[in-house]
Amino acid sequence: MVDLTPEAFRTLGYQVVDLLANQMATLPDGPCRRPVPDEVRDALLEQPLPLEPQASTDILERFTQLVLPYPMGNAHQRCFAGVNSPPAPLAVLADLLASGMNPSVAGGDHAATYVEHAVLRWLTQLLKYPIDSGGLFTSGGSVANLIGLAIMRHVKATTNTRANGLWAEATPLVVYTSAQGHSCIEKAVELLGIGHTYLRKIPVDAEYCMDVEKLRTHIHADRTQGLRPVCVAASAGTVNTGAIDPLNAIADICAAEDLWFHVDGAYGGVGILAEQTTDLFNGMERADSLAIDPHKWMYVPIECGCVFVRDAQAMRDTFSLIPPYLRDDTQMPWFAEFGIQQTRSFRALKVWMLLQQLGEQGYRELISRDITLAHYLQERIRTTPNFELIATGPLSIICFRYAPLGCNDLDTLNRRLLERVQQEGHTFFTSTELDGKLVLRVCIVNFRTTEADLDFLLEYLAKVGLHIRKEVL
Amino acid sequence: MVDLTPEAFRTLGYQVVDLLANQMATLPDGPCRRPVPDEVRDALLEQPLPLEPQASTDILERFTQLVLPYPMGNAHQRCFAGVNSPPAPLAVLADLLASGMNPSVAGGDHAATYVEHAVLRWLTQLLKYPIDSGGLFTSGGSVANLIGLAIMRHVKATTNTRANGLWAEATPLVVYTSAQGHSCIEKAVELLGIGHTYLRKIPVDAEYCMDVEKLRTHIHADRTQGLRPVCVAASAGTVNTGAIDPLNAIADICAAEDLWFHVDGAYGGVGILAEQTTDLFNGMERADSLAIDPHKWMYVPIECGCVFVRDAQAMRDTFSLIPPYLRDDTQMPWFAEFGIQQTRSFRALKVWMLLQQLGEQGYRELISRDITLAHYLQERIRTTPNFELIATGPLSIICFRYAPLGCNDLDTLNRRLLERVQQEGHTFFTSTELDGKLVLRVCIVNFRTTEADLDFLLEYLAKVGLHIRKEVL
Repeated sequence: MVDLTPEAFRTLGYQVVDLLANQMATLPDGPCRRPVPDEVRDALLEQPLPLEPQASTDILERFTQLVLPYPMGNAHQRCFAGVNSPPAPLAVLADLLASGMNPSVAGGDHAATYVEHAVLRWLTQLLKYPIDSGGLFTSGGSVANLIGLAIMRHVKATTNTRANGLWAEATPLVVYTSAQGHSCIEKAVELLGIGHTYLRKIPVDAEYCMDVEKLRTHIHADRTQGLRPVCVAASAGTVNTGAIDPLNAIADICAAEDLWFHVDGAYGGVGILAEQTTDLFNGMERADSLAIDPHKWMYVPIECGCVFVRDAQAMRDTFSLIPPYLRDDTQMPWFAEFGIQQTRSFRALKVWMLLQQLGEQGYRELISRDITLAHYLQERIRTTPNFELIATGPLSIICFRYAPLGCNDLDTLNRRLLERVQQEGHTFFTSTELDGKLVLRVCIVNFRTTEADLDFLLEYLAKVGLHIRKEVL
Repeated sequence: MVDLTPEAFRTLGYQVVDLLANQMATLPDGPCRRPVPDEVRDALLEQPLPLEPQASTDILERFTQLVLPYPMGNAHQRCFAGVNSPPAPLAVLADLLASGMNPSVAGGDHAATYVEHAVLRWLTQLLKYPIDSGGLFTSGGSVANLIGLAIMRHVKATTNTRANGLWAEATPLVVYTSAQGHSCIEKAVELLGIGHTYLRKIPVDAEYCMDVEKLRTHIHADRTQGLRPVCVAASAGTVNTGAIDPLNAIADICAAEDLWFHVDGAYGGVGILAEQTTDLFNGMERADSLAIDPHKWMYVPIECGCVFVRDAQAMRDTFSLIPPYLRDDTQMPWFAEFGIQQTRSFRALKVWMLLQQLGEQGYRELISRDITLAHYLQERIRTTPNFELIATGPLSIICFRYAPLGCNDLDTLNRRLLERVQQEGHTFFTSTELDGKLVLRVCIVNFRTTEADLDFLLEYLAKVGLHIRKEVL
């Protein structure tokens, strides 16, 4: 009953492929996203624990009715919410193959292990990061950044924290990020027992990049107070605006002050591939640890994060439960020795396949294209009446507002506008807060988006805005 | 190029389904596992970063040649290595649908959110755990256990560790597990900054269960030394032997001593569903936090772990970055507020589908069947000359040795035996260490395994053993 004959699997598999193919066919003309109707939500939430076995076809039918029509929506050409790209169709099928083979890539002699090693090397080459660094696929950026900071703690502590915890450490360690750094840095600092009191959120400049003079000032002030500055976690593409901190200047400070240089490039790190922005990533190669998320801007399905650590030995020393004197250097070490997970899925396969389908060249073109589209939208916003451009990051995120003259409460106006847009489903995006203002945030990480979609976006917002404006004012 | 037309996706999707269907058809008569030939390993490891785009069919062909024939092997009916079950075919297709829809289940109003809520409730019902507990799908047991212990630290510390780290905590916290507890408990204790010096590995009894008298003694000794005992991490099914710690007795001690009661049921927790073993899980419902891994013994593909926490509010308070005064209680909280990840895949879908396909009843039968098979093998080992049963856990793991009379070096003999077995590929399993001895370890978490496979296993081992024995002696 739990098993299927190969023939039954084939039949059901074709049905599942058809469901997704049909979804792809109707996607462009359908809504970007449908709010879940109350009765569907209740049917899902309240379905009792199934007691008796049910036929696969009935289950697929229920899925088709209740689940498939209500995705989060990032496959649609006018989904601009967040920095998770739509998945390339081949990468979706790679996930099927990974689940079908079902290896645990903890390590050992099987194909998935070698594929992961190869893909990690390819990524270091693309990112211009040292080829002999330690690397690991993770569930996403939160864990990739956590692993980077865990290794930092292991290296920078004055005592053996794996053995003794932080109890024997005389002085609190201090970590620096920018006020626009991702919240997962704060989560990591908390989980590691450092505490967010010892995470300094350095103010940003007008471009939302870390102010390195203020960073220097904070480091010296902390030393004066008897604390131990140990790490700067810079952003190579914030998720709010795509701002890239001045990496070389921060690397210089880290070198001068003996701090660990971590770069969170979860969203933006692959911007190094685009000719327009590649120079902004100078200095990223100096990072002690680097997080990037292929599921953000490399067009593979969720989940796929990645962390690289310059000192592979430090990475292993932080996590391996095999004592150094028992390590067999004639064998490849297990991935489980380099991170938190033991059982690990075959995330590398989708990146392996997609990197072959696109080639380095294809990736460069796609990333570059998204940035060109973002610049196009920025320019349209600048020249369209009643819109105000708030942030012009160099990558593919645009923050703006609907700002008709005479409106005193732009936050309320834009919040209502966004609610209406999200309800109607012709396009989908969210808001963020910048300098205390609510702003609309559009992210372009989508190979299906065209200039026409961006033209539609602005024209549609202008039309809805006019309507809402009458209601609000 | 990166996108496919619906028709091209359908064609390629059918090919991929065919690959897996053919794999299923040839599986039973093929080897359990093929060592990766040197030239295949080198081809994978040394393939240069692709520069030019390649055709999908070529990529699939390379996958078919180099990757698919060399899985880790747990789909085969005679794979007894580790406690990752083969994936049910429907659950494999569920992963395809999850990747195709590609939601991030951080939270929000889309179908995947509601499916995850429903499945978490179903699991609490199956596990007899409080239905209003907090719950979260994770990458696996390591992160599930880490989350449980992170919440423990948050609750048990005398200061606000999220803000102040462990620096202001006057007394080291002490965690207890058994000498047979999983290594991920040690990793978690290290990552949380507690340090493994403050993890006590309590000796086990003859059944490899935690000795509760010794637990009590250690707790009192630690208090006398001025340390702060805060948590017992019990095992509900160790991965070495399937031993279940005396949960009610430990829960009593935790209640009396004001300790957090964590249960690692990653592999064995679902043993509560089998009539033979359900009583051994009495007390699991008293746990403050509980980890189980559907990818271990619930027949879904890797990755799928799960953590439940009795006090959902404490779970949220440990991880949420939304201050309590800003939480909107009319909305469902986001899953990202209950754990480490922000972007989260739709892991719940495969459990949702499989629980409907099997029903509670089907799951009970399958788990029970695995246990019956394990008892059958134990009995066969007991009555077969030259074999020695080392551990008889109540669940589905059997530890034994090939132990012909007159052999003085059983460790070497069994290591050689295992090497030969792994090389030949008719069956696959690994070894572990118990009481300083190398023992063979067979795990039965496989709906394809029959008594005939176990008969084959013993007869084959006897035959190979006779051969090896001549070489070794």
